[in-house]
Amino acid sequence: MTQVFTQAQSIFLGLQESLTAKLREFDPSLHFVEDKWDRPEGGGGVSRVLTEGKVFDKAGVNFSDVEGELSEEAALNQFGVSQKVSFRAVGISSVIHSFNPKVPAMHCNLRYFETKQHSWFGGGIDVTPYYIFEGDISAYHRGLKTCCDRHQPGLYGCLKEWCDRYFYLPHRKEHRGIGGIFFDYVGKDPLPLTPPSLDQSPESFVTVVRDFGDLFPRLYANLVAQRAEEPFSEAQKQFQLYRRGRYAEFNLLYDRGTQFGLRSNGRVESIFVSLPPLCRWDYCATFAEGSEEVKLEQTLASARAWA
Amino acid sequence: MTQVFTQAQSIFLGLQESLTAKLREFDPSLHFVEDKWDRPEGGGGVSRVLTEGKVFDKAGVNFSDVEGELSEEAALNQFGVSQKVSFRAVGISSVIHSFNPKVPAMHCNLRYFETKQHSWFGGGIDVTPYYIFEGDISAYHRGLKTCCDRHQPGLYGCLKEWCDRYFYLPHRKEHRGIGGIFFDYVGKDPLPLTPPSLDQSPESFVTVVRDFGDLFPRLYANLVAQRAEEPFSEAQKQFQLYRRGRYAEFNLLYDRGTQFGLRSNGRVESIFVSLPPLCRWDYCATFAEGSEEVKLEQTLASARAWA
Repeated sequence: MTQVFTQAQSIFLGLQESLTAKLREFDPSLHFVEDKWDRPEGGGGVSRVLTEGKVFDKAGVNFSDVEGELSEEAALNQFGVSQKVSFRAVGISSVIHSFNPKVPAMHCNLRYFETKQHSWFGGGIDVTPYYIFEGDISAYHRGLKTCCDRHQPGLYGCLKEWCDRYFYLPHRKEHRGIGGIFFDYVGKDPLPLTPPSLDQSPESFVTVVRDFGDLFPRLYANLVAQRAEEPFSEAQKQFQLYRRGRYAEFNLLYDRGTQFGLRSNGRVESIFVSLPPLCRWDYCATFAEGSEEVKLEQTLASARAWA
Repeated sequence: MTQVFTQAQSIFLGLQESLTAKLREFDPSLHFVEDKWDRPEGGGGVSRVLTEGKVFDKAGVNFSDVEGELSEEAALNQFGVSQKVSFRAVGISSVIHSFNPKVPAMHCNLRYFETKQHSWFGGGIDVTPYYIFEGDISAYHRGLKTCCDRHQPGLYGCLKEWCDRYFYLPHRKEHRGIGGIFFDYVGKDPLPLTPPSLDQSPESFVTVVRDFGDLFPRLYANLVAQRAEEPFSEAQKQFQLYRRGRYAEFNLLYDRGTQFGLRSNGRVESIFVSLPPLCRWDYCATFAEGSEEVKLEQTLASARAWA
């Protein structure tokens, strides 16, 4: 185990603590479950699931530290190399589904992979609103930019664009949300998906990842604090359930983490904590011209500069 | 266009009529929408969607007749050949999500493909219950067997096993439902997935497909008639929504028709009519020992001889 691996482990375990504490502070009514699990092939994790609160419908804060051998199919999908690959990976993943449709869903994933040849970080932070409050979104993006700017000029723009490209549903011609930051294979050599400006060693990038971990609970707290007390109608709640269908579509059709988890025989209940607590699919749903619902659809149709 | 294509078209359009009529006869309260649509690359379809009835939450009865060129990726996924392939395909697909959790969800898909080299039928009939009524299931399977036996000894066993293998969620180690019949590439030469006993020409198999189309509305009517009036509790309704999550998982993660539709730039709203009107994901849901809910889980854990 390398020094970076130990650092990543420690950062992710710390984030699991701080994020859980923040969620329970906001919503003491949350039902809290913690499960420690072992993976038969090696390693394990700690899943924390908070449900049926007054502020959050469901929040998962999952830590995992797994090792083993990826099948040829999984390795091809993950690394583009069709051969069995021994790996060790540590990660934290959190998806927070709000109760109030005025509060967005939020997602943070940070992960670190090591194989014999390579090691790299991946992950990101992104937000999926049901109703658009432009000031909230700009403040959130500025928070990400400030954090990135401390490390490297241009980093925010690079990770923001990556996020816009990654969280996209081609069949809907729509972004999953209003973005944030995303990165993968950072520090892996060669860097198939990494823009030139991000050619950083894991030893260097670990400090960036640590700061993202520190930032996430604060960013989310800001978004919740703005909107959790706002009144909403039953129709707005149903719109939230409808939009959550897109969240399920993205995670089951495209999400790399979900695919990796399922292909590497991960713990299904932990992987699927990301799926909505309740969601709906409506045939050809349409909304009134000029409505807030149409404003969301229009906002998600193309990426925008928010910071 | 071959004679078989014309026959398939006619059979599928007839089934769309008869099935819609049967659904509306059972549930006159259903809200009915019909949309005719064109596919930019060629062809189109007629989608019928029936929602918010007293017997059915949502039922889709979709006809499509499309042609064009599959991308290399789609062709590789569909035919195992990495080159652009011109095709024409006609099909009918119906998924019926019941209101009463004592009534199963039911699915029928029949499709016929033609490329320059090959032509073949695919499809099937399958049932996804929330509560197990063994007598109902046996009668349903016997209905399928009787129909198959008229055409070929051993046909039912072959298509039944195929269905058990196809409607399976490996990550859950669970069948989607209690099965039925499934087939694909029937009449295609070579027949990569076809058991030897099914080596039939499209000219011959079209009569089998016609009989499956005739049978489906009657099979479903039997299942509905048995159970639509049964009382159920709110907990049983929630269990239905929970189990529908598995339906969404199968369709988005594995279903060949969904994948084909999305990769061939199909009409998304028609493809996703199959998705549940409302569903939920619960973390590590468990049910009381000996309960009807556990009986369902046990039943879906392995395939069973029902006929």
